[in-house]
Parts: sequence; C-alpha cells; structure tokens
Amino acid sequence: MPDNLIDLRSDTVTRPTAGMREAMATAEVGDDVYAEDPTVAALEAEVAARFGHEAALFAPTGSMANQIALQLLVPPGDELLCDADAHVVTYEIGAAAAYGGISSRTWPAVGAALDPDVVAGMVRPDGYFAVPTRAIAVEQTHNRGGGGVIPLDTLRALRRTADEHGLALHCDGARIWHAHVADGVPLAEYGALFDTLSVCLSKGLGAPVGSLVVGSAERIARARFLRKRMGGGMRQVGILAAAGRYALAHHVDRLAEDHAKAARLAEAIAPFGVLAAPVRTNIVPLDLTKHPLDAKSLAAAARAAGVLISVLGPRTARLVTHLDVADEAVDRAADRLTTVLRG
Amino acid sequence: MPDNLIDLRSDTVTRPTAGMREAMATAEVGDDVYAEDPTVAALEAEVAARFGHEAALFAPTGSMANQIALQLLVPPGDELLCDADAHVVTYEIGAAAAYGGISSRTWPAVGAALDPDVVAGMVRPDGYFAVPTRAIAVEQTHNRGGGGVIPLDTLRALRRTADEHGLALHCDGARIWHAHVADGVPLAEYGALFDTLSVCLSKGLGAPVGSLVVGSAERIARARFLRKRMGGGMRQVGILAAAGRYALAHHVDRLAEDHAKAARLAEAIAPFGVLAAPVRTNIVPLDLTKHPLDAKSLAAAARAAGVLISVLGPRTARLVTHLDVADEAVDRAADRLTTVLRG
Amino acid sequence: MPDNLIDLRSDTVTRPTAGMREAMATAEVGDDVYAEDPTVAALEAEVAARFGHEAALFAPTGSMANQIALQLLVPPGDELLCDADAHVVTYEIGAAAAYGGISSRTWPAVGAALDPDVVAGMVRPDGYFAVPTRAIAVEQTHNRGGGGVIPLDTLRALRRTADEHGLALHCDGARIWHAHVADGVPLAEYGALFDTLSVCLSKGLGAPVGSLVVGSAERIARARFLRKRMGGGMRQVGILAAAGRYALAHHVDRLAEDHAKAARLAEAIAPFGVLAAPVRTNIVPLDLTKHPLDAKSLAAAARAAGVLISVLGPRTARLVTHLDVADEAVDRAADRLTTVLRG
Amino acid sequence: MPDNLIDLRSDTVTRPTAGMREAMATAEVGDDVYAEDPTVAALEAEVAARFGHEAALFAPTGSMANQIALQLLVPPGDELLCDADAHVVTYEIGAAAAYGGISSRTWPAVGAALDPDVVAGMVRPDGYFAVPTRAIAVEQTHNRGGGGVIPLDTLRALRRTADEHGLALHCDGARIWHAHVADGVPLAEYGALFDTLSVCLSKGLGAPVGSLVVGSAERIARARFLRKRMGGGMRQVGILAAAGRYALAHHVDRLAEDHAKAARLAEAIAPFGVLAAPVRTNIVPLDLTKHPLDAKSLAAAARAAGVLISVLGPRTARLVTHLDVADEAVDRAADRLTTVLRG
Repeated sequence: MPDNLIDLRSDTVTRPTAGMREAMATAEVGDDVYAEDPTVAALEAEVAARFGHEAALFAPTGSMANQIALQLLVPPGDELLCDADAHVVTYEIGAAAAYGGISSRTWPAVGAALDPDVVAGMVRPDGYFAVPTRAIAVEQTHNRGGGGVIPLDTLRALRRTADEHGLALHCDGARIWHAHVADGVPLAEYGALFDTLSVCLSKGLGAPVGSLVVGSAERIARARFLRKRMGGGMRQVGILAAAGRYALAHHVDRLAEDHAKAARLAEAIAPFGVLAAPVRTNIVPLDLTKHPLDAKSLAAAARAAGVLISVLGPRTARLVTHLDVADEAVDRAADRLTTVLRG
Repeated sequence: MPDNLIDLRSDTVTRPTAGMREAMATAEVGDDVYAEDPTVAALEAEVAARFGHEAALFAPTGSMANQIALQLLVPPGDELLCDADAHVVTYEIGAAAAYGGISSRTWPAVGAALDPDVVAGMVRPDGYFAVPTRAIAVEQTHNRGGGGVIPLDTLRALRRTADEHGLALHCDGARIWHAHVADGVPLAEYGALFDTLSVCLSKGLGAPVGSLVVGSAERIARARFLRKRMGGGMRQVGILAAAGRYALAHHVDRLAEDHAKAARLAEAIAPFGVLAAPVRTNIVPLDLTKHPLDAKSLAAAARAAGVLISVLGPRTARLVTHLDVADEAVDRAADRLTTVLRG
Repeated sequence: MPDNLIDLRSDTVTRPTAGMREAMATAEVGDDVYAEDPTVAALEAEVAARFGHEAALFAPTGSMANQIALQLLVPPGDELLCDADAHVVTYEIGAAAAYGGISSRTWPAVGAALDPDVVAGMVRPDGYFAVPTRAIAVEQTHNRGGGGVIPLDTLRALRRTADEHGLALHCDGARIWHAHVADGVPLAEYGALFDTLSVCLSKGLGAPVGSLVVGSAERIARARFLRKRMGGGMRQVGILAAAGRYALAHHVDRLAEDHAKAARLAEAIAPFGVLAAPVRTNIVPLDLTKHPLDAKSLAAAARAAGVLISVLGPRTARLVTHLDVADEAVDRAADRLTTVLRG
Repeated sequence: MPDNLIDLRSDTVTRPTAGMREAMATAEVGDDVYAEDPTVAALEAEVAARFGHEAALFAPTGSMANQIALQLLVPPGDELLCDADAHVVTYEIGAAAAYGGISSRTWPAVGAALDPDVVAGMVRPDGYFAVPTRAIAVEQTHNRGGGGVIPLDTLRALRRTADEHGLALHCDGARIWHAHVADGVPLAEYGALFDTLSVCLSKGLGAPVGSLVVGSAERIARARFLRKRMGGGMRQVGILAAAGRYALAHHVDRLAEDHAKAARLAEAIAPFGVLAAPVRTNIVPLDLTKHPLDAKSLAAAARAAGVLISVLGPRTARLVTHLDVADEAVDRAADRLTTVLRG
C-alpha cells in the first residue's frame, strides 16, 4: 500500500507499534498446546477477569473464536438465531453450518437497533417436530450496522428471553471495546449478560493477530478441545499474546480518539446525504442510494484520490478509523472524500 | 384415534382408500435400488412430465425430497435464503445444516405474502470474504403461512432475481397441488419457474407414504446418489408408488372439495375473531392473540369436544381438511369448535 | 428382468409373496409420525422383544437404521472402529462422516474372521490430544465377507473390550437372522451383546422395504428424532410394517433352505477353484484371482447364460440365494455357472 | 518447565532463538486477509518454490494445513485412505469427518513401512453403490511410526496407484524436512509426487507457529477461502512468517544434528530392549511390551529424574530431539534414562 494512501477500509489494517513490537520481541513463551505458554495464560486470565468470567481462550481469529463459541452452545442440527447481517452468518464463510452443523434463522438486518420482541417471537421450543432453538447471537458493536451500539436495555431483554426459554446468549464482541468506551458500560456488565463472548485484539486494539473466547471454566475447557479440532492450537503463541496484552494496557481508552475521528469524517460528508446512520463509534456507514455514484464507483474514485474505503453492497460502503490514521490524515481524507462526493 | 374424533390436525393423517389399497396389492414391483421397479419408474416419469421436467425421484418423505434438492443446489458452507417459517428450516430438524452444511438466512415469516424485493436485497454475491448465496427456497402452498398461495407474479420476480445472480430456485411443493387447484395455474407453469421441486403424495393426495424430487436429468441422477446417502434407497417400493399413481389419477382435482370444506370451517369460526388470514386452500390458520384461550387450551378443549387440531405456537393453531373428513364431519366439527370458542 | 433369468445378485431382489401382499392390503394403519400406526408399533415391539431390548424403530432402509444407530453412539468428530469392508463404510455412501461427522479407522477386511485383539489394540482413550474412540461396529453375517458368521466368542471378546474402555458396540445385523439360523444362537443372546442393532426385513426375510434400529428406550426415543432429521419419518407406513410382521412370522426359519441352496451352488463350483471361503449362510463368495475370467467377464458370461451375479471387485463376485430362487432354479443356475466357468 | 528438565516430549516445544526473535521484531507486515502482508507472501513463494509447486498458503497450524488440503481433495462423503496411526485421523480431533465430512478407511499402523499393494487393494472405484475413494494421504516422516522415512519407491508406487484410479495424493509433511535431510531426497522430488503437501515450521524448524499448504495455484486459491472458513485468516501475521523465513534459512540443514542426537539416545537405551524400531530421524520410539515399566510409569520416573518424554499408548512412548536440546543435554538425558530403565 503506498504511503500516501489513507486506509479507511477497516481497523484490521493497523500495524504493530514500536512498543508492541518490543513486547513481542521479549515475550516469555512456551508450548501452548501443552498449556505451557505463560504469556498466553496471563492474557487469558486478564481478559476473563475484565469480563467477569471464569476463563478465556486465545484463538488465531475472531471467526474461530465465534465458531468455537457457537459449537459450544448449539449441537449440530439445532438452531441459532441472529440478525441477517451478523458477522457469524456473513463473513465466517458458512462455518457455523458447514462445520458446526448449526441451523440458523435470522431477524432483519437492522444492526444495533434490533427489537427484542421480534427475537423472542422467533424462538422455537424443544420438541420432536421442529428444530429447537438453542442460542441467540448478537454483535456489539455491529459491523455491518455501522458500528452501532446495542443499548443495554435491549441486551437485558434478550437475556430475559434466553433465560425464559433455556437458551444461551453469545456476544460477537470483536468491537465490544468500542461499545464500552462509547457508552461507558463496564466490560463486566456486558460479560454478565452473556454465556460466551468473543473479543478481538487485532481490530480496534491494534494487535497483529488474535481473539479470545470468554466463558465458564467448563465451557472453555471444551473450547480448548474444539480449538484443536478447528486447527487453532498453536505452539509458542505467547509472541502474539504479548501484543494482545500490550494492546489491552495501552489501546482501549484511546478508542475514544478513533470515535472522534469518525465523527469528524461523518460531519464532513453529512452534507452529501450519504450517511447511513449516526456515527456512534469508529465506523462511518455510507448509504449511496440517493447519490450518483454507486459503492464500487465511489471506492474507485476515492482510491484515485488517495483514500481506501470498503464496499459492503451495491450502494453501501464504509469508512473505519483506527490507530494508524492520525488526526491530520483524517482531515486530509475528509477533504479528499468531499471532493469525490461533490463529483 | 377413537372413531368419533374428527381429525383436523393435518392432511397427513389420511388412510388409504379401498381403491388405493387395491392398487398397492396388485402393484408390479422390482428392486428400485437397481432401478428395476416398473411402478416407481412410471410414477417418476409421470410426475416429471406433469411439471415439464426431465426427471423425478421417489423419496420416503417430503423432508428427504427437500433435503436432497437443497444438497443438489447448495454446496456445504454456502447459503440458502428462505423464510423464517419455512418447512425446510422448521420441521426438517436442522437437516440442511446438520447434513448438508448449508448456511441459511431467512426473511420474515410472512407466509405466501413474501416481498421479492426483500429477498433480492438479501442475496450475497460470490467472493472471498462472505458466504455466497446459492439458492432461494419457497413453499407453495405455505404450511405455517396458513395454506396461502404465492402469486405467480411473486414467483416470476424471484426467478428474475435468481437468474440475475446465478442462483437456483427450489420449491417445497408438498402442497403445490392445492395451489394448482386454487389458482388454476398449470403444474408445468410452476415447474418452469423452478430448478427443483419437491412434491408430496401423502398429504392432500392421500397416499400413505412418499414424495418426489423433480428436476433435470443430471440433477436427478445425482439425487439418486444422495438419496442412498440419506438412507432413502428402498427396494420393492413400487407398493408405495402404486398408491402414489392412484392418488395422482384420482385425488388431485378433488382437492377443490377440501378447499370448500376449509372455507366452510373458516366461515363458521370467523365471528370469533380468530382467523389469522383468509382461507385459500385446505388450511384454516388460527390466531388466538385476542382470544381468551391460548393454543394449547383451545386444542385441549377441542379434543374434549371431539375435534383434533394442531398447535403451531403459543397462540397460533391450525385446522386442516382432507380426504378423510366428509362434508358432514366438517359441519359437526364447525359446531363443536364454535361451542368451544364461545367458551 | 426376463423371467428366464435366475437372479442371484442379492437377496434384496425378492418380491412379496401372495400372503405378504394380503397382509399389506389389510393392514391397519395410522400416522406414524404421530406414533399412531398400530401395525408399526406392533412390529417395533415384536422386534425389540426378540432381541431382548426395550425398544425398536422402523426405518425405510438398513442404511438409515445403521446411520441412526451410529449417530446415537458417536458424537461428531469422535471415532468409530469397524472393518475396512464393512457395509457402514462401503455401501452407505459415506453417510457416517458426511452426515454424522463420524471419524472412522478400520481393521483389515477379513470378514467374519476378525481378531478381537487387533480391534482392542486400535482403541484410543478419551483425552485432549487425540480423537476418542466411542464405538465399535461389526456386521453379522458379513456381506462382503461372504456371508460368514462371527463366532460368539469373538463377539464376547469385543463386548469385553467395549466395556473396558466405555465404548458402545453396534451390530449391523441386516442378515443376523442368517447367523441365528446357521449357528443356532438365540436372537436375544446376540441382542444382549450389543448396545444397538440394525436388522433388515427386506433382504433374506423377503419384505419389500424396511429395517429397524434396536436399543434402549432412551436411545430409541432419540432415534425417532434423528430419523426425522434423516428424512425417514413416514406416515401410514403400517402397510410396509405388515409385510415385515408377515416376514418375521413366516420367513425366519426357512432361511435354512437358502443356506442349503447356497451350499449346493458352492459344491457345484468348488471344483473350479473359485470359492473364496466356505459357505456358511446364503452367500457364495467367489475369488477369481486364479481363474481366466475376471469378475466383470464372468458376470457378463453368466448373464448371457441366464444367471445374474454381483461383481464386488476386479476379481471378486458373489452369488446369493433367497426366497425367490426355488430349488429347481438353483440346480439350473449351478449347471449354467459350471458351463460358464468351464470356459 | 523448570530449567533442569530436559524436554524430549516433542520438537514442538522449542522457543524462538535470538536471531528469529530479531527477524520477527523487524518484520514488514500488512493485512494478510487482504493478501497484503509482504513477509507472508515471500514465505509462501519460497516454500512453493522449494517443493516445485505453484503456490503455498500460510496456516496457523499443521492440523489446519492438513485439513484444508483434505477438504481440497475429498468432497464430503467421499473417501480418504490413510494409515490407522496417521496424524490426520489421530491428532486432528476428527476434523476430517467432523468438518470435512470425509469418510476414512485405514490400512494397518505400520508407520513408514507401508505396502503400496495393500493400499492399492483398498481403493474403491467411483459408482452409485459404494463410497468412492478420492485421495490417499501419507505422513513423511511418520510421527507415530517413530520418525520413519517412507522410501521413495513406496511413494512412487502410491503415485502410480493414484494416477491409475484418478485419486489425489497428499503428504502430511510436518517433518518432511527430516526425510529430506535423512535420505538426501530433494524437496522438489518429494513435491513432484504429491498433489498437495502440508509442511510445518514449528516442529523441527523451530519457529513458534505456522505451517503451509502447498499445491497448484488453483487449489491454493480455494485453500485461501477454506482457511477463512476454518478461522485461519489472520491479519499482520508476517510477524510469524518472518520466523518461518528465518527457520527455512537457518534450521533445515542442521536437522542432521538432531538426527545424530536421536541416534546417540537410541544407542544408549538399546541394551534395555525398548527400542521399537531403528532410529532414522529425530524421534526415538519406545516399545515397552517387554519392560517392567509401562509407558506412564516410565514417563513419571523419567520426569522425576529430570527428563520429559511422551506417552503414546499403554506401552509405547517417544523421545524427540530438537533445537533446544544441546549435545550435552542429550548425554545427560541418556544417563538419566538408562538409570530409570535399569530400574
């Protein structure tokens, strides 16, 4: 990627900082398949503690962390409810069905604005004639939902539905840090609402690789077995866990800066009528339905102008702020994009 | 089941008629795993011809016929779109995911009243980052949708969407005979719209057992292989195919009588405000949201009064007319149900 | 199939007798998905009782009966041990892995002559690092093993191994009736050795369609759920169950006649050095390694001479006697085959 | 692990060297999900070139690399042949069946001494009635086979069998570097024999994490998609790829030292009659059938004496030499083990 390009495609593109590289270079490691890597163990303990859960498990990707959690909660052939735009049924390449045998039904793609009554109405009881619902999954913040934050009241209502029907509740918390920072909800308060969570170190937090599954000690013991089946049981992976620990220590609170950058970008492009929803965190969702450019054309024009953006659909796109776009780059990106949008 | 009970739970409960039993008793048979059963072959040819397709394959159940079709159309991990109340993701016990590895996203449960634009908006293109959509499935008539008939225009719009994106279109046509009779649409006109269909002999048509998958010669050859994998490769099954041939010859046109019976039932109970939707075919859908009795209580009271009905949800239920409820029994059932609903 | 052909391909080719057709024509039936078919219930109770088990479940095929049993015994990803020529990993089209996710390792294809110590040596304990063995499956009599009968001592040794390691033991008993008749071992004595059995009505017993899974009440309740997922939940299937009941009443003891016919065939062809193993039941296994004709050529020549046989491999083939080959036909078949083998 | 323990459990336990850490600390990275990590790209190109294949793909573990390859070669329900002690059906937790739906039959566990005729005899042709064989997998060197090296002639015979039947041939080459060093066979000569290979950087080569799948450009493009489905699509993973590149540059030829160390260990313990097979590479396989100590007791006694070994079965165990056991430690380990074995 040429240096003059400003990369707003995703917060996954960040490169490790000097401090993070130093942490990796000096990390104490061991064979984590034998559960002997002290840095991994420390990271797992720290993340579990932050969410008030008993245990956590390192995984190479957020997709694997989610899939392990879903396999923990839903036996093959049984049912998961989630929204039609959820990462778990969109960007994980069908793994829930292909590998977990998990049947899914989806509520409409409304991002963070889901209606808990709609979800409750979809639950199917256990029985002989129909596929029984076993779990509900939500995404906090919601990626394709433009970084929206699901309100605590909505989550509590889902928890009540889950309890009433004996279901499990999973949080795809790849960007739950952003929700925590945006809404000021303690991580442990989120943690208390879910049976399992996945959290990601390599998106907003800026680590190169890694996610964790969080849950009870019993579930995480089983998760360790499933991680091996998924091909995620790595060896001296404390190298990566060290980056994760560094990210937790240094890159959580600063997400507020990324949110502010996204708000500045949103403000700049708002006059063009392409903002899909108010910006809550580090994602600026674009709806080009009423704009002359479709998503691919906009992305091409933006690239030509020196800004990389993500295409999500024929007329939807996305800007994402992160650790590697400085304030000054945000201003330049805003200038370039407004020029492009002006046409 | 005591004789005095009137069984309106489903059209699956019919017992073979004398003529049908005679057809079974005298059927010529062979080993159908070796494709040597002449009665099965004749049935398959006849059903294929009725729908204007090249070939058809006998299967022990509608669930297996659907699942074979879905496995033909969607590779493991890829995506099927259907509605949230579809038989294929409700009553087939998660087989699409558990056995086919098929990922599903669903549009809202609106029965036959689906909006083709909503479906089109859910399609995901092939690509590296997201699970690609491969097929759309509809249900004609729609079981949980109260026997509603999807309008031909809706089906044509779905066909255009499928063609535009290179998707396959499947029809769960367990009760497509009812749509054909209710709307007067030729079976071949339905057939032309779909890549595969499943059709059922043991529901409205009154055969004891059996469904067929309909499609191209190439797909049906593969279906034969998948049927064996599913455990559906039976031997001298011409016994059952003979009942199916009899049903096709004698029990299609008479479905109009079942529709009339359902209309009479609906008329009788309409004053109680429990009709969920206008009756189009042989199903009378009940919505008890505003009635003092919930679905289980109504079913229990109806049973005590001599009528069996099906519970579909906490406040939804269903009456189904069929070959084994005579006109006179329908009148008696209407009387009994109005008494129960009156409270 | 022309009438003058003598069909020795398999005992699956038999057509129902007049008495069996009469039993089907007059069978009392109900909707077996609702567990309301009295003839099915009676058949299930009778088969369970014969094997001394609590319950049994009707299935459309032996493949489905086996696969349901394996899914009962082995969770996805865990391991089944069986022989490399077992029906469950040969003729069931990979269903154990494709649908059950069951991992399999196999001992060498030695038919009924398996060494229990070899099997015991293959068991892998539960643990984090390796796939745990959960079940062992044997086939009695052994189809590709030439109808051989596994000795009771071998089965008892396997039972001890299973008990020692907490494994389940399954019997693919498609032709267990033949073992019972050949060795005089009571069916209940076999039943006591296995956690689950599948037994077939449509092979030696001559019914047109049907098999059963046999096991504990708890397992069979789960089997009913899995049968629906497999697409095997049929409706008024008492029609077929009636044939099965007739077969149990009339066609078990007479298997001795089929064994005698096979012995006569074997005696006739023994001089040509093509008998793969001594004949124990109704299968005559041919090994053509030292004969000028390979299996396909022999089958073609036999067909031309009026006898149908099965090809199992490049130089292996099979003759099977059954209800539909009379003594006189056996003699004619022996004459024709010796002529062909003489070259 | 206390410093005074000598860890001979596995070559997976090595910690990165100072040079390797330096390579990681200074690695140029990018988002590899977008195929923008230059260090990963360089590693993939280098490994592909070494084996004379078009392309390669980085994966977090050898298990995932193997499973991706198997999913490339064998459609769900079709068949893989491998040996009963192969890593792919032992230590990968049933993933081939659970996630790939791959049916497996196994030849006896004879390690590197497999008989190609036995394998050829197991192949099942494509057809309607039986599960078709699609691929054969071998393991070079053979882990549970004591680090044995499959002779080139054996591999060539398997290649001929594969070609004759249209099968694919996969090599689990986690330790193929050892075979290359032990037998002097060029990596490209191995590469030419296989459709796909997996190779590991974190065993003998001493990198902390990482394996690669090697194959044609078309297969590796598909592998990239499957890696995402498996949850193995990592971001700035050039950190780990840098360690791999360092390992390739510095740690291949030196494997001869590990082989020499293993030979010294073998020589020391040979007098106790516990050597399972001649040592060919870096693994010393122990057979304790005739020794008073079983495997668990020996491992416990060895640990008490300051040596860690691996238990493989009730009376089988393993010593492995690697980068992190110096010559002097090997001598000490030999002393300690002989003391323990002496009893």
